[in-house]
Amino acid sequence: MSHELDFVDELRRRFPARSPVHTGIGDDGAVISGHESEQTVVVTDMMLDGVHFDLSQTTAELAGRKAIAVNLSDLAAMGCRPTAAFISVAVPGLAASRSLLSSVYDGIERLAEEYQFTVAGGDTNAWDGPFAINVCMTGVPMGSRAILRSGAQAGDLLAVTGPLGGSLGSGRHLTFEPQLKTARQLIEHVSIHAMMDISDGLAIDLHRMMDASGTGALIDSNLIPIHQDVPGTLSAAEQRHAALTDGEDFELLIAVSADQLAKLSQARVCELTEIGVVTQECGCRISVDGATQPMVPGGWQHS
Amino acid sequence: MSHELDFVDELRRRFPARSPVHTGIGDDGAVISGHESEQTVVVTDMMLDGVHFDLSQTTAELAGRKAIAVNLSDLAAMGCRPTAAFISVAVPGLAASRSLLSSVYDGIERLAEEYQFTVAGGDTNAWDGPFAINVCMTGVPMGSRAILRSGAQAGDLLAVTGPLGGSLGSGRHLTFEPQLKTARQLIEHVSIHAMMDISDGLAIDLHRMMDASGTGALIDSNLIPIHQDVPGTLSAAEQRHAALTDGEDFELLIAVSADQLAKLSQARVCELTEIGVVTQECGCRISVDGATQPMVPGGWQHS
Repeated sequence: MSHELDFVDELRRRFPARSPVHTGIGDDGAVISGHESEQTVVVTDMMLDGVHFDLSQTTAELAGRKAIAVNLSDLAAMGCRPTAAFISVAVPGLAASRSLLSSVYDGIERLAEEYQFTVAGGDTNAWDGPFAINVCMTGVPMGSRAILRSGAQAGDLLAVTGPLGGSLGSGRHLTFEPQLKTARQLIEHVSIHAMMDISDGLAIDLHRMMDASGTGALIDSNLIPIHQDVPGTLSAAEQRHAALTDGEDFELLIAVSADQLAKLSQARVCELTEIGVVTQECGCRISVDGATQPMVPGGWQHS
Repeated sequence: MSHELDFVDELRRRFPARSPVHTGIGDDGAVISGHESEQTVVVTDMMLDGVHFDLSQTTAELAGRKAIAVNLSDLAAMGCRPTAAFISVAVPGLAASRSLLSSVYDGIERLAEEYQFTVAGGDTNAWDGPFAINVCMTGVPMGSRAILRSGAQAGDLLAVTGPLGGSLGSGRHLTFEPQLKTARQLIEHVSIHAMMDISDGLAIDLHRMMDASGTGALIDSNLIPIHQDVPGTLSAAEQRHAALTDGEDFELLIAVSADQLAKLSQARVCELTEIGVVTQECGCRISVDGATQPMVPGGWQHS
């Protein structure tokens, strides 16, 4: 929503993390530490009819699938595998609610089978409003601990796990595969400094990672991988702009040392596309056709 | 909602608990086991404008308070103290949303201070629908493990932590104190076989505990404590009926051995009201003016 970044900052100031919470508001998920070596990670996302999907255009099964998949993407971004899902739904009226719910849960069940988590609780309500679904998921680190977005270091390389742009227009936002497998491969092979998923578009999400890390970034616009869902009828500049700003890509953005990225490249375990570097100087910049300029949430300032 | 019990049963069959989930759908919360001795409990409740509160009659602060308090009540029912809350909201439009949200979070903050948990994450969205809020909370057992509703044993006594009825009519459902302190006192002094909170009315919730435990119950209607919020203008029978069926009491229902209840009574740590016994024979019965009859979700069959 409008001003969401400001609002999240306000909430973070208002609700500092108390033990046993290790990392609270502001990352893809929260980290709760139990025993010293054991972390539980919690993520949550609410999806609303007319905002995140449109039930007049989309099946309820895909709506249920998306509600889970965006949370799985958050867990992947934290370097975690899922353990349990808690699903609250508000369904309009009573007449068609049972078949609607049944379809929503069909979409959920497929991902529960594929990624082996338990639907362990929830809340079901009827009301006069549109369909709404909230999913809260728990997970545990695939490696020794959760990976935060705040660990990027000056000199790190920035990379993404796949091409960006065109997700909403193509409907890919309903069917994307959360990057759990890639996250596992990365964690098994290299040490990652920072990771997050690209949900609001690289131009916004890169700022979030750099702000959290106290660093800046310099991106080369020519290196940004453009998804085939971005219409080929657009100009080259428009395509890069779409890749930066469309959002709902649910690929991972990673900050990793050059050594580790080279190691990964040699091992050929997964495809990463290098897009830029982390800088000591704060702020995000982008080079477009040889000229470097500030990167803004809308991409870059067109001259 | 209508048929919610059936629907919960269907979900429970569809989504059996997978490791590390120990107890899934069907209790006040789910139990996730990490290390063998360490359990995390997760509860969730969604609250909707026009269903669980009415923002044309109630402050947003009380709506936020209730959304947290019902989850704290679920944690108390599991014998757990809260650790973290995850809050998703859908707010109508954009114009008044910031002040609405600020008031909602005022109500949340008071309980976070009082019960010392962290607001550790969430999701904020604007839409064309009414105000909706989902809270998911994590907690840890106050004793050695979470207390389920499935542990009642034939011969146990049934008791409640306070008077019932009149909660919705009086507005108490917005201001009630979750029974965390009482739960702690109980756990410190005695061994409890089963516990749950009374949210849909004793007549419904007692069935849930007995079904989960594979037992039955015989309740004495004269023993049911009637809240002063139940109008005194009602007949004695109507008052008992209100206490059984009004719901949203958020007192705790407890199954405990007679020995343990006597020990508690001697220690005078908290007030419990004995209302009946757990029976080997399944089904819930109630004695009304000397005659025993089946207890139904609506209370009892009036002749």
